[in-house]
Amino acid sequence: MKTVVVRNIPRADEATIKTLAGLGVSTAHEAMGRSGLLRPYMRPIWPGAEVAGSAVTVLAQPGDNWMLHVAVEQCKKGDILVVGCTTENTDGMFGELLATSLIARGVVGLIIDAGCRDIKPLTQLKFPVWSKAISAKGTVKATLGAVNVPVVCGGALVTPGDVIVADDDGVLVVPRAVAGEVAAKAAKRHADEDGKRKRLASGELGLDMYNMREPLQKAGLVYVDRPEDV
Amino acid sequence: MKTVVVRNIPRADEATIKTLAGLGVSTAHEAMGRSGLLRPYMRPIWPGAEVAGSAVTVLAQPGDNWMLHVAVEQCKKGDILVVGCTTENTDGMFGELLATSLIARGVVGLIIDAGCRDIKPLTQLKFPVWSKAISAKGTVKATLGAVNVPVVCGGALVTPGDVIVADDDGVLVVPRAVAGEVAAKAAKRHADEDGKRKRLASGELGLDMYNMREPLQKAGLVYVDRPEDV
Amino acid sequence: MKTVVVRNIPRADEATIKTLAGLGVSTAHEAMGRSGLLRPYMRPIWPGAEVAGSAVTVLAQPGDNWMLHVAVEQCKKGDILVVGCTTENTDGMFGELLATSLIARGVVGLIIDAGCRDIKPLTQLKFPVWSKAISAKGTVKATLGAVNVPVVCGGALVTPGDVIVADDDGVLVVPRAVAGEVAAKAAKRHADEDGKRKRLASGELGLDMYNMREPLQKAGLVYVDRPEDV
Amino acid sequence: MKTVVVRNIPRADEATIKTLAGLGVSTAHEAMGRSGLLRPYMRPIWPGAEVAGSAVTVLAQPGDNWMLHVAVEQCKKGDILVVGCTTENTDGMFGELLATSLIARGVVGLIIDAGCRDIKPLTQLKFPVWSKAISAKGTVKATLGAVNVPVVCGGALVTPGDVIVADDDGVLVVPRAVAGEVAAKAAKRHADEDGKRKRLASGELGLDMYNMREPLQKAGLVYVDRPEDV
Amino acid sequence: MKTVVVRNIPRADEATIKTLAGLGVSTAHEAMGRSGLLRPYMRPIWPGAEVAGSAVTVLAQPGDNWMLHVAVEQCKKGDILVVGCTTENTDGMFGELLATSLIARGVVGLIIDAGCRDIKPLTQLKFPVWSKAISAKGTVKATLGAVNVPVVCGGALVTPGDVIVADDDGVLVVPRAVAGEVAAKAAKRHADEDGKRKRLASGELGLDMYNMREPLQKAGLVYVDRPEDV
Amino acid sequence: MKTVVVRNIPRADEATIKTLAGLGVSTAHEAMGRSGLLRPYMRPIWPGAEVAGSAVTVLAQPGDNWMLHVAVEQCKKGDILVVGCTTENTDGMFGELLATSLIARGVVGLIIDAGCRDIKPLTQLKFPVWSKAISAKGTVKATLGAVNVPVVCGGALVTPGDVIVADDDGVLVVPRAVAGEVAAKAAKRHADEDGKRKRLASGELGLDMYNMREPLQKAGLVYVDRPEDV
Repeated sequence: MKTVVVRNIPRADEATIKTLAGLGVSTAHEAMGRSGLLRPYMRPIWPGAEVAGSAVTVLAQPGDNWMLHVAVEQCKKGDILVVGCTTENTDGMFGELLATSLIARGVVGLIIDAGCRDIKPLTQLKFPVWSKAISAKGTVKATLGAVNVPVVCGGALVTPGDVIVADDDGVLVVPRAVAGEVAAKAAKRHADEDGKRKRLASGELGLDMYNMREPLQKAGLVYVDRPEDV
Repeated sequence: MKTVVVRNIPRADEATIKTLAGLGVSTAHEAMGRSGLLRPYMRPIWPGAEVAGSAVTVLAQPGDNWMLHVAVEQCKKGDILVVGCTTENTDGMFGELLATSLIARGVVGLIIDAGCRDIKPLTQLKFPVWSKAISAKGTVKATLGAVNVPVVCGGALVTPGDVIVADDDGVLVVPRAVAGEVAAKAAKRHADEDGKRKRLASGELGLDMYNMREPLQKAGLVYVDRPEDV
Repeated sequence: MKTVVVRNIPRADEATIKTLAGLGVSTAHEAMGRSGLLRPYMRPIWPGAEVAGSAVTVLAQPGDNWMLHVAVEQCKKGDILVVGCTTENTDGMFGELLATSLIARGVVGLIIDAGCRDIKPLTQLKFPVWSKAISAKGTVKATLGAVNVPVVCGGALVTPGDVIVADDDGVLVVPRAVAGEVAAKAAKRHADEDGKRKRLASGELGLDMYNMREPLQKAGLVYVDRPEDV
Repeated sequence: MKTVVVRNIPRADEATIKTLAGLGVSTAHEAMGRSGLLRPYMRPIWPGAEVAGSAVTVLAQPGDNWMLHVAVEQCKKGDILVVGCTTENTDGMFGELLATSLIARGVVGLIIDAGCRDIKPLTQLKFPVWSKAISAKGTVKATLGAVNVPVVCGGALVTPGDVIVADDDGVLVVPRAVAGEVAAKAAKRHADEDGKRKRLASGELGLDMYNMREPLQKAGLVYVDRPEDV
Repeated sequence: MKTVVVRNIPRADEATIKTLAGLGVSTAHEAMGRSGLLRPYMRPIWPGAEVAGSAVTVLAQPGDNWMLHVAVEQCKKGDILVVGCTTENTDGMFGELLATSLIARGVVGLIIDAGCRDIKPLTQLKFPVWSKAISAKGTVKATLGAVNVPVVCGGALVTPGDVIVADDDGVLVVPRAVAGEVAAKAAKRHADEDGKRKRLASGELGLDMYNMREPLQKAGLVYVDRPEDV
Repeated sequence: MKTVVVRNIPRADEATIKTLAGLGVSTAHEAMGRSGLLRPYMRPIWPGAEVAGSAVTVLAQPGDNWMLHVAVEQCKKGDILVVGCTTENTDGMFGELLATSLIARGVVGLIIDAGCRDIKPLTQLKFPVWSKAISAKGTVKATLGAVNVPVVCGGALVTPGDVIVADDDGVLVVPRAVAGEVAAKAAKRHADEDGKRKRLASGELGLDMYNMREPLQKAGLVYVDRPEDV
């Protein structure tokens, strides 16, 4: 592992980020062709947050948050800090003081494949965090890692400058190169869903709305009238 | 696996269902002789819901929600949809559109041994879901399963038409044949607990109220006065 | 295992307990030299509680809560009941009736390395519980354990009379012999953090405030300006 | 839960059992339409065993093996004992003495959704066990369960008299009513695989042997020649 | 945490250790009243080893094996090194070089609540290790811990000088003060089992040998003859 | 996700691959600066295999092995097939027939972040597999994925053409661009270890050989002679 800090990473387009934040994780994930989602163990520490931003990445040692302090300096307004670890760990690498520092720089959220602490003050500050665990376990500052290199976080590859979208459904990474295209597809999907929602609410069946009856029959689905017939 | 949909399953008695919903999972579970509980990893996506209903069951492939669309048509007012998977999976098989469709049919809840998404709109709709995970991971519609066959969900056997009781304590399945008897026992237990609660609140010890002192002594329990004596 | 109940255990100093409750788990844990924390799977059943108290301990069999009834009698005002199990278990060993009894004796919380049920009434009673799981699974009263012997709970050793501190960040055990010293250190740490918080909020970097730049350079950290240089 | 022992359960046909034992779990599971498999956490305590037999079932309390002693009497030559628990548990419910007793009755294996101990003597006795865990944790004999009622074991429903097939790939339950049909299909599948194996060994591609190229193209698969084109 | 090394700890009696090694974990655990067992995730890296020895303990940081090097010097002939971590971790803290050093000092095994690597050479050296994981993940040498303080390892409390017994069934800790008594009880239990084994092998039922029929009937067990009667 | 197959990926240098296979995972991982290791849940299905090769990658849907059949055609002599999934899954995606096909093409191993079956024949064929699980659960062939795109497998990023090193200690990915440099460093490390092994075997302490005594003292390590002094 190169113990390096990369400065001046590219960021994604602001309008694209704003669009993706408004559409949310599930819709954007479908527009990605159902890829890019972090593992579902990444959960928000308080409910209701909906954010998107450019990823500043950190690769950290287990139980060591030294590189988070280094990463703060590389963050700009609208960024989201993304922390991967060299090994599975749940220690509380992040808390109120680091959040205060990130807020001062305009960072809009944290994604950390480890633990988070100071849940009460972070909730009061309305600083959103998606983490693997909640843990008060303190960390040392002893071993180098890296900032702004590609990292695996929650089982997904995050490259610095990728767009992170996060809400109550989870966390999604959208590669910067396709972010505009994904935002457009997601917006179209969202618009289409409005019509479907109304039809389903009125009692129309998905079986009919999606024309599923014929493919189901072709695939061999059989209807019987009593359990005894099974 | 037979790829079959069973229509016209029997349902449980409405009054019994209403009684069980009011008594809740923990009390009904005790009245069942402490059986029928789904594994505790089945958690509500929002707190406070208390429901009961007749089970319509689905057996689905991992990452494939085709059979959920098929199952909607088999649901009636007051039912609860119960989804088991052929293998462990956390994908987000269920979201706002399917919920809209179920609500249109009068379904009162979903129990799914997999993932759920669209947490925010489902919470706003007050549609209760107990799931293994929250995940935005989208699913395909490619492989058949079955509807209204017996399924294992959360480690418990659910037969179509069984009564499902679910609240913040978890999810319970009560076989239809014994539902009336269980409801009666649970109601009696609930009534008994009121008296016990008052006695305990007044400072009476469970040791005395339950007459435990003698059996504890017979079993060999010893009291000592200082740690050094241990 | 000795099947024994130890009476008249020593308790920690009230003022010390009050100080630790006010400072919280994360700060006290740092003052302990980052030790004494229970595993992060120990989570509160409702958010926001902040308590501290002297530990009354229970060692129980899986699926058997007989010894909890025995332990109630040994509890005094301000105590926290701590339950360890002889083997991993998630059954709902504790619910509303036991909570009613503990509240009657002035107990301020429960820490249980197993399951808890009756979540709704416990939340309404504002009785705080930190548990491994939420489960309606009922338990038997058949096999002896012990009360007020040292137990391992959530991976940490708890000796009767130790101070337990618990909040949304987790659960900490502070040995009685060092509780006063830990409280003093934690209070000092808390005071120091106020100044740091203000400096970070004003935009000062942790890199500068903690004088990290030189040690980072000595450890070999390199800055580059473009990803291509990595 | 009824605390009952059912005597004189039906058994499956001996020839069918023998056929299924010879074909193994993976082949029989495919012939079942890919259903009936226990969760993959059920692992053999020693490698290489291949058995099949009629299920005698036990429902036990966590940490309590009383009902296993009761079940022994209900076992006949060629049976396999299947143990489910009312809650997740890894205690060592089974060891050398119970194995000695089962061997005396002609039982050919044990499937237990809990722990097993005495690994060394069980290996020397060549008595095959598939379990959730290996654990020396001893159990009590205090609470009733049931023998020869339907149980969920490893996430699958087992009805007394069903055929259990177990080998290094895992454990399969084949309902007695379809066991003959499944054995016949599995035998056919096994015969078909011989030809396929030879063709693949000679270098023929599955893409060609299974005629996959056209459906892949229709589904939209694209071939490109350099990573840069992706 | 005190960053301390305690020298000259007491050891257990050699004859007692030898007796316990010969009787094995399951028998000694029963003689302990079914306590003292480490969690079943502690597994041997190669099968068949059976050892006992006095515990030299280490408390280590996650991903940091500095204190293991410190601990080697405190080990004597016949000791077993026991490593607990301040937080859950699976890194490969121990490998061939440390084993070589321990073997040179006469240490007979390692118990580590973390990862182990160099599985092949350790197997060839016949050095027995029980660990939580196998992992090649290397560790740093940056942060102090402690040697020969009480540690929690695999969920059990280990005090320096306690007797560790380990085999294919798991790992047991026997407090030094009761080791002699436990060894005597375990030897008696072992002798008793020989007779039982012969009776069971001859076909006698445990139901009769343990006189269980009457207590089962009193507890309410019912026998029925056909499944339809349940 | 692009449903694409990339042909003609670059491979690593043969001599480099051979060197890395001989040095093994733990040594190569240290030479990588302790990065590139897959999570320790990736375990060999039989012990003793030691391989290295160029990665051909597959991204598959849960419970669907269609793309493995596609990938076989892209494999050449000396390759290792690496399979990542779009979501966590343990189904048995790989068995004897696919292995037969891979062997026919000269592939030397499989790394799969899912399940594997046919353990007995794969062991007899001496075809090495590192997998997340052993499971007979069969899969469908219904949904496209991708071949030879970057995938996350066992928590690590694998780019087509990277060198995979795998043995009993786990699985390591070495980026192709640095493979030569890593092999050289690993060889040097291996040579250095011979000398250290001899010194440690002769009784020299690591404390002295690594000159740790002074840094330990500076870090604040204290030696005391009796437990009472702690």
